[in-house]
Formats: sequence, structure tokens, C-alpha cells
Amino acid sequence: MFIPNIDKFRIILASQSPRRQQLLNDAGITFDVVINSSGDENYPKQLVKEQIAVFLAKYKAKSFNGDLKENEILITADTIVWLKNEALNKPVDFNDAVSILQKLSGNCHQVYTGVCIKSIDKEVVFSAGTDVYFKKLSLEEITYYVENYKPYDKAGAYGIQEWIGYIAIEKINGSFFNVMGLPIQKLYHELDKFINT
Amino acid sequence: MFIPNIDKFRIILASQSPRRQQLLNDAGITFDVVINSSGDENYPKQLVKEQIAVFLAKYKAKSFNGDLKENEILITADTIVWLKNEALNKPVDFNDAVSILQKLSGNCHQVYTGVCIKSIDKEVVFSAGTDVYFKKLSLEEITYYVENYKPYDKAGAYGIQEWIGYIAIEKINGSFFNVMGLPIQKLYHELDKFINT
Repeated sequence: MFIPNIDKFRIILASQSPRRQQLLNDAGITFDVVINSSGDENYPKQLVKEQIAVFLAKYKAKSFNGDLKENEILITADTIVWLKNEALNKPVDFNDAVSILQKLSGNCHQVYTGVCIKSIDKEVVFSAGTDVYFKKLSLEEITYYVENYKPYDKAGAYGIQEWIGYIAIEKINGSFFNVMGLPIQKLYHELDKFINT
Repeated sequence: MFIPNIDKFRIILASQSPRRQQLLNDAGITFDVVINSSGDENYPKQLVKEQIAVFLAKYKAKSFNGDLKENEILITADTIVWLKNEALNKPVDFNDAVSILQKLSGNCHQVYTGVCIKSIDKEVVFSAGTDVYFKKLSLEEITYYVENYKPYDKAGAYGIQEWIGYIAIEKINGSFFNVMGLPIQKLYHELDKFINT
């Protein structure tokens, strides 16, 4: 409500993530959700860190099915987990989720979200990164979490806002909401600039 | 459920804060809430930063009204906001809340929570600190927040999990949940040590 002229636009969030929808809503932004089946989320193998998230956010915007109208603004986003020299994706099954969490255990990793804001005549992309420090997890803790929370829709196989976030994350450096899937403060600011400059 | 022997104890949280109750609950710990009217929260004026939070957490434990039984563990906590060389308390009225948020605007401050874990025969205190970076807020944003969210029960006059946390906090360094009122990961670990060593 503090973004001047935002009411002149229809904001479209092309994301199935309930966490992204909640974050945008709690920031006081009115929007519609449109499901965008962008197909495979492949990216060139030479990309690293936030480059991957930015590439995929742009890719999702590019492959948006509907044509944008003059008063519409599309938001797409992609979040990846980066550990040492590797992107950790969504787990494919139980064993994969356990294996991903074993890698995160006792280590610091980075969470990058790329965001694309697009209208009929311009496009802005940006990203945010957060360092996340996990304590050493026992196998018992990991299997309990995966069995009960089924983190199959989450890059890195965990939700910071779930039980494992409470008991395992010692500290973060950066935006908390970025780890949930959307750097909401930065997005709010970028949306203001997008509309008003 | 991963703290061995915790079911042998009755955990008592002496805090009226719904946020602390939620955090302890979401960490999977079963507890009772007991309201503790500890009276004035004064502290010696030479104390700074986490010393204040630790002093007040201990004071709340000391002034706990009920006598602890052998199988009971009491948890008390206090959270303060520290800006430059000053502790910012809960706002006393609308103007005070606005004035506190104007001080936080465009600055980095620290949030310290002191926690006291106490049984009939021992007591442990610890603290956690988090750096919080606020963007520059407009007076319009501040008055909108205070009018609609009435942050009178919150040290520093804001809740990180509310609208202002979404649009104004650029980044943090430390525990997010500590800013909400309880460094839950550290408490979980300390509670395990308290019970099992």
C-alpha cells in the first residue's frame, strides 16, 4: 500500500510455492497466482550460485504461458541451495532427502533466490543470497524430519520455518525470508522502482 | 522428542509472550505456561547489551511465584533491543513507538535475549545476539505500522514476523527466532545439556 500507483497494475505471481504466496501477501501486496508450467528447469552447467537462480527466474518469465497485458506485472522466482561447489535441488525421494540433509549437517551453505519482474515493455532481474549455518544433525533427527515433513518440494530438502529450522539452524547471515523463497524486502523495493521510475 | 529423558520433567515456561510459546511449541517441546508477575523490570544502570537480558531472565526466574518441585524445569527469558549505546524498551504509547522506530530507521541494531533454565538444584543462563539492519523508513510507513499492529508489547516497538519485518528489514546476522523472542536452537541444545549432563 506504500508503493505509489501499484493499484493501477495487476500483479501476477507465477509460482506454486505457498510460501512465496504467503510472503507476498503478508507484505501487503495484492496479486493473482497463475500457474506456469515452464517444463524442465535445466540451466547451463557453467553457471554457479545466484547465476543459476537468476537464469531460472528469467526462464520462468520467458516461458510464461499467458501474454502480458499493458497493465500487468509478472513476478517469477527461483531458489537454489548452494553447498561448497554444488547446487542442491529438490530431493527426488526419501533417500535423496536424507542424503542432502547429511551434506548440509554441520556446514554453512548459501541460499540464492533469483527474481524476475516483467511487464510488456521491461524486465528487471535481481537476486539475494543468505548464509545458513546448520548444526551437526543425527541420522535420527534427519529421518524424523523427512518422514514427518516430506520436504520434497523444497530445494535443499528443508524448510527454515519448520521443526528442523528451529532445532538445527544456528544462525543466518542475510534475509530470513529469502531462505523461505522470496527476498521480500528487496522485492518490495524493486517493485516500487519498477512501477515508479 | 530428541532430548532424551525430557518426558521425565514438567517444563514450565514463565512467559506471557505468545511468540515464545509458539516457538517452544514448534520446536516439539511439551510445556505448561505459568504467568509470573515479577513486577518491575528494573536493572542496574551499569549493565549493557546482553548483560541486561541475562539479568532480567535471572530476575524473572528468581521471582517465580511457585516453588519448583523436583521434576520441574523453569524457563524464563527476556529480550532487549540495543541501539548504539541505549536499550530500547517496550513503547509506552503511540508517540513513543513512533519515536523508537524513527531511531531504528536506517540503522543496524542488536537484539539480545537472555534465557534462564532452572530446576530445584541448578540454574543455567545464556544469551544470544542478532544484528538487524533496517532500511530508512518514512514517517508514513511508521505510523501505518504502529496504528495497525500496535506493537506495545514488543521491545523496540516492532515484530520481525509482521508487515514491517517484511518490508523494512534488509538482513540479519544471527538467529531469526532470537529476534522473535527466543533463540530456540540454542535453548533446545542447552535444555538437552541441562537434563542429560
